[in-house]
Amino acid sequence: MKKYNFNAGPCVLPKAATESAIEAIRDFDNSGIGILEISHRSPGWERIMKETAALWHELLHIPENYKVLFLGGGASAEFFMVPANLMNKKAAYLQTGVWAKKAIKEAKFYGEVEVVASSEDKNYSYVPQDYAIPADADYFHITTNNTIYGTEIHKDIDSPVPVVADMSSDIMSRPVDVSKYGLIYGGAQKNVGPAGVAFVIIREDLLGKVDRKLQSMVDYRLHIENGSMFNTPPVFSIFVMHETLKWLKSLGGVEAIHQINKEKAAALYAEIDRNKLFVGTAAKEDRSIMNVCFVMSEAYKDKEADFLEYAKGRGMVGIKGHRSVGGFRASIYNACPREAVDALIACMKDFEKLNS
Amino acid sequence: MKKYNFNAGPCVLPKAATESAIEAIRDFDNSGIGILEISHRSPGWERIMKETAALWHELLHIPENYKVLFLGGGASAEFFMVPANLMNKKAAYLQTGVWAKKAIKEAKFYGEVEVVASSEDKNYSYVPQDYAIPADADYFHITTNNTIYGTEIHKDIDSPVPVVADMSSDIMSRPVDVSKYGLIYGGAQKNVGPAGVAFVIIREDLLGKVDRKLQSMVDYRLHIENGSMFNTPPVFSIFVMHETLKWLKSLGGVEAIHQINKEKAAALYAEIDRNKLFVGTAAKEDRSIMNVCFVMSEAYKDKEADFLEYAKGRGMVGIKGHRSVGGFRASIYNACPREAVDALIACMKDFEKLNS
Repeated sequence: MKKYNFNAGPCVLPKAATESAIEAIRDFDNSGIGILEISHRSPGWERIMKETAALWHELLHIPENYKVLFLGGGASAEFFMVPANLMNKKAAYLQTGVWAKKAIKEAKFYGEVEVVASSEDKNYSYVPQDYAIPADADYFHITTNNTIYGTEIHKDIDSPVPVVADMSSDIMSRPVDVSKYGLIYGGAQKNVGPAGVAFVIIREDLLGKVDRKLQSMVDYRLHIENGSMFNTPPVFSIFVMHETLKWLKSLGGVEAIHQINKEKAAALYAEIDRNKLFVGTAAKEDRSIMNVCFVMSEAYKDKEADFLEYAKGRGMVGIKGHRSVGGFRASIYNACPREAVDALIACMKDFEKLNS
Repeated sequence: MKKYNFNAGPCVLPKAATESAIEAIRDFDNSGIGILEISHRSPGWERIMKETAALWHELLHIPENYKVLFLGGGASAEFFMVPANLMNKKAAYLQTGVWAKKAIKEAKFYGEVEVVASSEDKNYSYVPQDYAIPADADYFHITTNNTIYGTEIHKDIDSPVPVVADMSSDIMSRPVDVSKYGLIYGGAQKNVGPAGVAFVIIREDLLGKVDRKLQSMVDYRLHIENGSMFNTPPVFSIFVMHETLKWLKSLGGVEAIHQINKEKAAALYAEIDRNKLFVGTAAKEDRSIMNVCFVMSEAYKDKEADFLEYAKGRGMVGIKGHRSVGGFRASIYNACPREAVDALIACMKDFEKLNS
């Protein structure tokens, strides 16, 4: 049976990237040695590192005064590394979900944290709009896409202080004006590769302004100086990122995928709104184009397990919602084909017929 | 031309592990989804995590009061995480190379560091023997194998305080009595997998004794509580580790590979000692069974580039020595077949004939 992968991350990758990965495990760069066994100091690998950074710059139109880092440890490590590198006294955070909350917790190790607004009151089903960003903060931190709740900040924010954004789950899915951010970071395992590597895009002049001394591995400056090779990088994860970005470029880049993503999301939300069995959980204006969350409507509450089972029988994988929201979540990242979204929509329609 | 991979790490892996990796990229655990695209919360993956830890316990005979962690970031991150978790006031370090020196640098963030001995005076070509371990240290840190210099501490050390060992480059190559260590850590990319994951073996009762608060990702206790899944783990690197350990087990485990490793090293050192063109750089009693370092003998100093070129023409990969030692280094880790060592020996013999 054909499987449709709606996993929230790690998640579906472009076929072109996984096929390249397989080829490279057999033989990397015509070297006679596989990608898992090459030296990270070999010329072939150094080229991949440079090309990967160049693809980031090209696809996101990253200005020259920003550097892109590829680090092990995951976005969760950045939760403390960002304040370690950027916070002298105070930082402002927008609390739009548990990931934002985790980032806030780690930031408190390094100074005062002002939470400018939180949507915890409604289980993070919306993005707060009315808040003031304190001008004396070292930065303002947002989570642009909230994977668990299916909300997303669709527009770049105007801020009196540098904006720091965790874009783990919507990076490269839509154009952003990088010049409006001080730092953008995230784990690769949604739109830009497999698990095992995090990306950090940083405006270089923001670094070196904190008083504290930083452990080598925590210091972004050291990673910049060493082109993300201060220590052995997560070679394979970066290679698959490279192949994923090449695929994205071949499609026409971020602008082209954004169009496709909007169409996929619009089709699925339209079905949720039309189908009397289902109801969306996120505020309409804040609906994510990456994670589509929905539950059974009131009259069909008892059908949740049935639908999960039915969908499973139709090849749907990973559509169970996060336990804190319940219901269903379809993660429709860049590499999730339109065909998968159409299959899920057909499945919802057929389930409606069966239950009418 | 057949290539013989002597890379210092990342390095050659068992063919069985790379073949399994390829299969798993196509389809993991008969799920219809590839290993790069599965959820790390799927039952199939949770099984791999548990099996990998169990393989560690089995192969190294790790007692039950120790836990094994798999973390992103690499051994370089452990340089600061170890003292963050274990040092209250003071730690003792043995300085046997630049990696030990790097570990010392990071430890100083957390307290007083006493370097009990150093072999820097002779470019780390030996392992210091005469030193006293201070009884008031929180732990005593050693680097058991010094990849760059080809020296190795062959025996478990008797110490009045817990021994912490960076075993990045000789883990699983020889039996160790884990109960004589407080903590053992390293990067996977020599004997136990590809780059992208570090292992930490820790006696659990040593944790929770420091006064400082620890950032979540820095706190070993949190990783233990979450079975190394506090955040998304480096899935693929851990999978290849799992397959590498299965291969090791199928060979007869650490005791069996140790016998093979000793024979490989003995054969290569014997050729270095016999061949008038070459001379070993490490003190004989401290010679590593993993990294074999040698240079041209005095009378043939001008032949270094020639030999490198000649060896390259015979399929040898990665035998150029580290710039701080010069000459040659053959890294003959677990997965390096005897055949490769014999090919290198033949190459050395033939080069001798050509130059006699």
